[in-house]
Amino acid sequence: MRHRLALIGFGNVGVGLASILVEKRQSLAREHHFECDVVAISDAIKGSVVDPAGIDLDPILQAGGKLDTHPKVARNIAAIDAIKASDATVVVEATYTDLATGEPAASHVRAAFETGKHVVTTNKGPLALHYHELTTLAASKGLQFRFEGTVMSGTPLLSLGTRNLSGCDISEIRGILNGTTNFILTEMEKGNAYPDALKRAQELGYAEADPTGDVDGHDTLGKVLILANVFMGGKLRKEEISRTGITKITSEDVAQAAAEGKRWKLIGRLRRQDGRVAGSVAPEALSLSNPLASVMGAMNAAQFQTDLLGDVTIVGAGAGRKETGFAILADLLDIHRTVARS
Amino acid sequence: MRHRLALIGFGNVGVGLASILVEKRQSLAREHHFECDVVAISDAIKGSVVDPAGIDLDPILQAGGKLDTHPKVARNIAAIDAIKASDATVVVEATYTDLATGEPAASHVRAAFETGKHVVTTNKGPLALHYHELTTLAASKGLQFRFEGTVMSGTPLLSLGTRNLSGCDISEIRGILNGTTNFILTEMEKGNAYPDALKRAQELGYAEADPTGDVDGHDTLGKVLILANVFMGGKLRKEEISRTGITKITSEDVAQAAAEGKRWKLIGRLRRQDGRVAGSVAPEALSLSNPLASVMGAMNAAQFQTDLLGDVTIVGAGAGRKETGFAILADLLDIHRTVARS
Repeated sequence: MRHRLALIGFGNVGVGLASILVEKRQSLAREHHFECDVVAISDAIKGSVVDPAGIDLDPILQAGGKLDTHPKVARNIAAIDAIKASDATVVVEATYTDLATGEPAASHVRAAFETGKHVVTTNKGPLALHYHELTTLAASKGLQFRFEGTVMSGTPLLSLGTRNLSGCDISEIRGILNGTTNFILTEMEKGNAYPDALKRAQELGYAEADPTGDVDGHDTLGKVLILANVFMGGKLRKEEISRTGITKITSEDVAQAAAEGKRWKLIGRLRRQDGRVAGSVAPEALSLSNPLASVMGAMNAAQFQTDLLGDVTIVGAGAGRKETGFAILADLLDIHRTVARS
Repeated sequence: MRHRLALIGFGNVGVGLASILVEKRQSLAREHHFECDVVAISDAIKGSVVDPAGIDLDPILQAGGKLDTHPKVARNIAAIDAIKASDATVVVEATYTDLATGEPAASHVRAAFETGKHVVTTNKGPLALHYHELTTLAASKGLQFRFEGTVMSGTPLLSLGTRNLSGCDISEIRGILNGTTNFILTEMEKGNAYPDALKRAQELGYAEADPTGDVDGHDTLGKVLILANVFMGGKLRKEEISRTGITKITSEDVAQAAAEGKRWKLIGRLRRQDGRVAGSVAPEALSLSNPLASVMGAMNAAQFQTDLLGDVTIVGAGAGRKETGFAILADLLDIHRTVARS
């Protein structure tokens, strides 16, 4: 089966996906009968290329993901028009996350569904803020909506919970959902003070120049909202989740925890209690016997507390170009399997 | 959709499944449209009950899983005849594992396929020793063959690798696949000598009176064989896997590893190298920064090394009545989804 993709947002993640599709073209066809053409690429900075005959990705990848030397590049096609006009079967939405509004991604997703296209996204905004509207719209059109890459990049946390553990009742989810803050806490355990640890994270590209989104827990909160929507019935509003970042944690706190056989981690947590769902983002000093405590550096991890299996923990990458590109590939393969069957 | 189950082997795991089916009857129907009747139960010790109208599980569970007070119990129906004669749609094979021959489970699985029934099993023997024959037979009949519970009980290691990570290349798998030995090593870290740690494991029911199968690594080797069959093309024979147990590990070894920031674990390992697959079972002193090192007590864990995602680790229960019962439920739900679609 041959799919037609529109790549909306062609930064790190979109380019990462493109290189995976080129590298794995033969094995995907051989092992999964999965074939695809990219029929549109649209990026707010790089411009747009639309070609129903299929875009050759090789020269674009050789140009480092830039589109400006492509013969068909256009500056006057907005992403939303590329989505509506293209004959894509699947829209891959990988623009930058805005957790205040969910835009422009939410509009991209809506436009895709309204014109009959499946959607894969790595953008946290639409999932944190518009989950019910968008899943309802997809269902009403008989379309697929996948978003594995919104939490823990390609590490299959969402599909583990929704599919593999679907016979269990999940009473609590807790996790290290932000790699930047986990890297900073790991550096502090090596003896670095918070400002030095942050600086190192910025030098390595883990933290942005303005690190607020990570260190104050906003990014983790967005992921907790997504998990609440997917696993806990989505009755939780953003304002109901308490949020504390890691900026108040001192070298003394880290040393004292170590002396008690513990380790600070920024934990996003959701818990069912008394028929309600409580959510929080806060640093916690975990016992070293907790599998989450051993997750170091930029790695992520999450733990499902279940009725039949006890705790199930998954540990893996939380970010990265290839890793998030893989999240999209996994979602595309899931759509492929579902559509091929129906 | 209503399934008809034959439960072959009605020990801990079979009874565990029966109690889950009773407890979750309503939520399975509501959330998954899954309904089932148990039309046959057969156990070498407890006897057999065959009833196409469906067996009421409540009085059997109230009798602690015993069948002898059931009005239809028969002593002269062998499991294989119950499989052939029953009108079950799915055979659940949960007899005791024999890693030398795979019997009688392999014959049960064959008989099920030959009479047109899907199979779920938690028995390691058929998977370790007869994988290709049985998967080929199932495929030739268009039947489902599921065995999540053979490795790490209900912790979804097999479905994680075969489905969620299916777009990745897996180059290595390593894991703590036996809870008994991990419990003993954990006890030794608390300062207990090997004989005392083993005695404690026996008192708690983790280790058998003859602990050889666990402590000499035979059980782990069986699981490594299953993983080789499922993930590495199955070109590995039992004799090609090196095997060392934990009986030679001394308190001094444990203390020395601790002094070096390490921890002994019995690791089952499979690795692709130079176009071949190498397998081993051996104790390894792991760095504490390895997520496998923090897995304590009777817990299990496994790590996939992949091309696109790096290392992905799953940690969870490795045994238990409810936990292995859940493995069967997860497999039944997967069959349900597949059959309902086709």
